Amino acid sequence: MTPKPTSTTSDPKSDALHGRESAVKSMSGLELKPYYDGSDVAHLDETRDLGVPGEYPFTRGIHRTMYRGKTWTMRQFAGFGTARETNQRFHYLLKNGQTGLSVAFDFPTITGYDSDDPMSEGEVGRCGVAIASLADMETLFKGIPLDQVSTSMTINGPASVLLAFYLAVGIKQGVPLDKLRGTTQNDVLKEYMAQKSWCFPPQPSMRVVGDVIQYCATNVQQWNTISISGYHIREAGSTAVQELAFTLANGFTYVELGQQRGIDVDSFAPRLSFFFNAHLDFFEEIAKYRAARRIWAKRLKERYGAKNPRSMLLRFHTQTAGVSLTAQQPENNIVRTAYQALSAVLGGTQSLHTNSMDETLALPTEKAVKIALRTQQILAHETGVANVADPLAGSYFVEALTDRMEAEAEEIFRKIDAMGGVIRGIENGWFQREIQRSAYKAQQDHDSKARITVGVNEYVDHDDEKLEILRVDPKSETEQVARLKELKRTRDDAKVKAALAAIQHAARSGDNLMPKLVDGALAYCTLGEMIRTLKAEFGEYHEPPMF
Amino acid sequence: MTPKPTSTTSDPKSDALHGRESAVKSMSGLELKPYYDGSDVAHLDETRDLGVPGEYPFTRGIHRTMYRGKTWTMRQFAGFGTARETNQRFHYLLKNGQTGLSVAFDFPTITGYDSDDPMSEGEVGRCGVAIASLADMETLFKGIPLDQVSTSMTINGPASVLLAFYLAVGIKQGVPLDKLRGTTQNDVLKEYMAQKSWCFPPQPSMRVVGDVIQYCATNVQQWNTISISGYHIREAGSTAVQELAFTLANGFTYVELGQQRGIDVDSFAPRLSFFFNAHLDFFEEIAKYRAARRIWAKRLKERYGAKNPRSMLLRFHTQTAGVSLTAQQPENNIVRTAYQALSAVLGGTQSLHTNSMDETLALPTEKAVKIALRTQQILAHETGVANVADPLAGSYFVEALTDRMEAEAEEIFRKIDAMGGVIRGIENGWFQREIQRSAYKAQQDHDSKARITVGVNEYVDHDDEKLEILRVDPKSETEQVARLKELKRTRDDAKVKAALAAIQHAARSGDNLMPKLVDGALAYCTLGEMIRTLKAEFGEYHEPPMF
Repeated sequence: MTPKPTSTTSDPKSDALHGRESAVKSMSGLELKPYYDGSDVAHLDETRDLGVPGEYPFTRGIHRTMYRGKTWTMRQFAGFGTARETNQRFHYLLKNGQTGLSVAFDFPTITGYDSDDPMSEGEVGRCGVAIASLADMETLFKGIPLDQVSTSMTINGPASVLLAFYLAVGIKQGVPLDKLRGTTQNDVLKEYMAQKSWCFPPQPSMRVVGDVIQYCATNVQQWNTISISGYHIREAGSTAVQELAFTLANGFTYVELGQQRGIDVDSFAPRLSFFFNAHLDFFEEIAKYRAARRIWAKRLKERYGAKNPRSMLLRFHTQTAGVSLTAQQPENNIVRTAYQALSAVLGGTQSLHTNSMDETLALPTEKAVKIALRTQQILAHETGVANVADPLAGSYFVEALTDRMEAEAEEIFRKIDAMGGVIRGIENGWFQREIQRSAYKAQQDHDSKARITVGVNEYVDHDDEKLEILRVDPKSETEQVARLKELKRTRDDAKVKAALAAIQHAARSGDNLMPKLVDGALAYCTLGEMIRTLKAEFGEYHEPPMF
Repeated sequence: MTPKPTSTTSDPKSDALHGRESAVKSMSGLELKPYYDGSDVAHLDETRDLGVPGEYPFTRGIHRTMYRGKTWTMRQFAGFGTARETNQRFHYLLKNGQTGLSVAFDFPTITGYDSDDPMSEGEVGRCGVAIASLADMETLFKGIPLDQVSTSMTINGPASVLLAFYLAVGIKQGVPLDKLRGTTQNDVLKEYMAQKSWCFPPQPSMRVVGDVIQYCATNVQQWNTISISGYHIREAGSTAVQELAFTLANGFTYVELGQQRGIDVDSFAPRLSFFFNAHLDFFEEIAKYRAARRIWAKRLKERYGAKNPRSMLLRFHTQTAGVSLTAQQPENNIVRTAYQALSAVLGGTQSLHTNSMDETLALPTEKAVKIALRTQQILAHETGVANVADPLAGSYFVEALTDRMEAEAEEIFRKIDAMGGVIRGIENGWFQREIQRSAYKAQQDHDSKARITVGVNEYVDHDDEKLEILRVDPKSETEQVARLKELKRTRDDAKVKAALAAIQHAARSGDNLMPKLVDGALAYCTLGEMIRTLKAEFGEYHEPPMF
């Protein structure tokens, strides 16, 4: 397009304070002009900064034809109660057109405790499915051949053990390991920053992550070993800019971990994937995804020496923002989720979880889950937005914002480097404090109504209807504990002991843990037993004081 | 932005048939490339073709700061039962943050029959509010000072009479006519094309429209005299391209009508407004609104000699597509409506009606209406999309599509000129046949599943829950008929007769009808009486055979 001549008179775009105060900044606090034009992107070079879809620097997406051949994977995070109950939900979702599975584990599981541990009481199966052993994992995937689905597992501290359970199910189903497809979240760094469910201190945690990377690079080549996750960083209260920068900084740290182990970057980087939040600021979110791809591609090529373009591709799953949902007027959440899902798709996501309208109140009902899935289907099949790759490319505003997000992230990377890297920053509490500061600012904006949340601090109804919500039957916990006790009574104790001893030995010697964890899974060692064995070697972790 | 060098090798964008067949065309049937880049907009000139927001050719919107100062008007079309019942709904909507009123009239009213006419039986107050006289109009706006609101009235054949009722309410409230703000749809041309509710043949209908334009230009200067409407053309089955072209062609015809009467274009064109549909194809809709503004501005300036920039501004109301809603899985309609509303806002609409999820089943319930309004509030306050004017400007795809829509419309204008203009085309049945052809194609695509409608021809549930729906109490009709009979019994018959005689005289002599209709309203002549008087002079109309 022929750009308009540059004006020498005063810039009309600078009357930025005209009108609503809250309208002049993005959710991350970036100042926005009233409009953008060609002069805002004059410094960009289409070939260098955008490329075409499917080509370096991948700003415009990782595939040339993007969603034309195949839309994103519609992957609804699901799990509650016992493995048996969640297995039924999985069959329901697959029957309704979902194309990938995503497991939500309960709190005991994600922190590494067995269902019958005293620590677990009252939490078993409450916010996810309880998985304590291979037996539970077999029930979870009953009737679901593992070579037919891809499975995402939201598990971090004990990710290596849950992956071992999954591989063991594959072995028992007769599926070769290199045919298994899926993702373990396995991103411990963001646990220290935001989600706070870890098993060991940062250094041994990173060693276990390294074992997973190394093991999968030669044995489970289609497995996404880490889903480097900004989602929880954002949910903890960060801005979009912080989500982008902290998540990519964690990603760089994992790449450096692999390289420190002497693994060729091109043999493990293609199996690193990402997980981002889709929050409310529509264009900032789109710019975030586009900037993330460009930053990752440039860094992998230029700093880490990747040769394989697949190493440079930032592939990501997206979940709509749980924190943006409101208990008040829950149908409004259908609308919020719809907009967030669209931003993820326009940003080129590879897979998507759309939150259910009632997720802020309880586990979602089948009806609410279905509306959330239908949202994705309408997006894919009715709106035409999947027809053209990166349809916003070239937009003065979107390109300028993408560029700005990149610059903001680069500034944060410099700070992190200056403090000695991500792990040092975690140990100093820097990331945690930065996130808290943003969360506090957001709360202030909410209280002062600088930001309006419909139905909460404005447009409030005093006659809100109550939504029918799903409650997990407390019998689930009783059933799960009984099954686990029965397992412990009937399994081969000698095999269990031998397997745990082998795990302990590997932990101490530095041998790769993964083959020993798979053996442990096949011997029906429990999650709690294997994690306790590792903790005995690795120690426990206590967060630095925040102030 | 520095464009990438033009490649001499074969164009990778031409592998358009890669993947899903339905993904390669827009809803209007325009072929879409897998992606767009700088070469697709190289022929455009930013200054000439886009301008900046608020400047000619207004492609980027009619205001420089767009929604920053003030968001679009949230105007939910509402009306059912008696004037008393609809008055309550209006108060409810105003209390919930709606910023403009929009009246839906019942079928007898929009076709010019009184509530007590035998033709009206069973239809009174069913699909809108029954208004038969000034008395009803006074009840409709009880407690709503007309200088505080703007009111849109969806009425066409009898628009002049309903406008007279409204002006009479203003007079009785003591509000000067030049303080009244609102819109009469009053677009008879699209009635012949699509909605088929007319009172007289095309020529006398156009004369009455001309009277309204002329009267308001000197008396009710803030009134939008015609809302030139593509909505019904689209709902009848046209494509987006046809909606764009037919609607603008009708607009040109009204401008020419004003000019034929010797009225200065700059004294009436600023009060012409538009009404478009927001349908499912997200980007095609956005491109449609942008192309519409550019075409209108260029035509008004270049062909009709407008000097006042306000004459060149295409201002428009948008309603989300009623035909896109499904009776199945009605919550899916919340999602569809949300995406459609976003396209309207990104396209720069001035006001917006979001359909309620149950509108395809019945009149909307209060709950459904509230969710629809909340959709707009979330869009305005939570998503940030109102922060930057025309945020998609510069997008390779959106600009190329805008340009293509304009070219397609210009081609249709040439056809219409060649057939002797819009009225000739209506009399020949050309528009009606073109719309039918598109509707037939859409039905075929639905049947063959070339286009998927979630919950209808794919992702069908067999256990659909029934939604609670609103039914108008049949007592409303009884009450309305009784009130009207009482009015006819108690009014001053001599005044009524004199007023009707004056209307008849003006119809025959060619004097402007509007002052006489206002007098008729104030004398409590009924809608049916005034329309019958005009029909006696103007005759009735029968559609040409379609095949």
